[in-house]
Amino acid sequence: MSESWSKSQKKYAKELFDLALEREYGAFIEEINSLKIESRDEVWELRDRLNQKAKEMDRKYDYRYSQLIFVFVQLFCDGYLSLDELSMLGEEKLDEIKKMIGVAE
Amino acid sequence: MSESWSKSQKKYAKELFDLALEREYGAFIEEINSLKIESRDEVWELRDRLNQKAKEMDRKYDYRYSQLIFVFVQLFCDGYLSLDELSMLGEEKLDEIKKMIGVAE
Repeated sequence: MSESWSKSQKKYAKELFDLALEREYGAFIEEINSLKIESRDEVWELRDRLNQKAKEMDRKYDYRYSQLIFVFVQLFCDGYLSLDELSMLGEEKLDEIKKMIGVAE
Repeated sequence: MSESWSKSQKKYAKELFDLALEREYGAFIEEINSLKIESRDEVWELRDRLNQKAKEMDRKYDYRYSQLIFVFVQLFCDGYLSLDELSMLGEEKLDEIKKMIGVAE
């Protein structure tokens, strides 16, 4: 797997990364706002959910070029980026991603 | 300060303790449900608020008889119990509470 990223690949990678981050936050904010807490247990379930999400986001959004392909595979699997969008990274990177998610022909 | 609690004082103490707990949870649940999260920062502010509240509740609601007078003073100061309600504990305990909050005559 190539860990080198050209200038334009870096530019698109940053855009896709930010787009996924925006979408994931958007979905999470919607989830929180739709909650109606009714019991003590639900208060602490919300706390656990927020703590778990903080860890998850911190782990997932790792912008090191050595990790970026794995990050994009994860973001595809989580539904925050499509293959069509990931094709902005160019054929070589897209193929790496596809191989990892097992849809390469 | 007397740390001994009669059977009936213990009974009323438990009722008052539970009443305050119920009220504090009620107020907190209302606070959470009234929030409308709009930004990433607000997501993590909510997490911080929940973690802080968990610590606060844990520290505050200490049902050891040696601590109970201090607990009731705190609950009075926080507005979760009135002196009228605390009078259920009997004159002796009420006087201790009043002395601590500085309203004794």
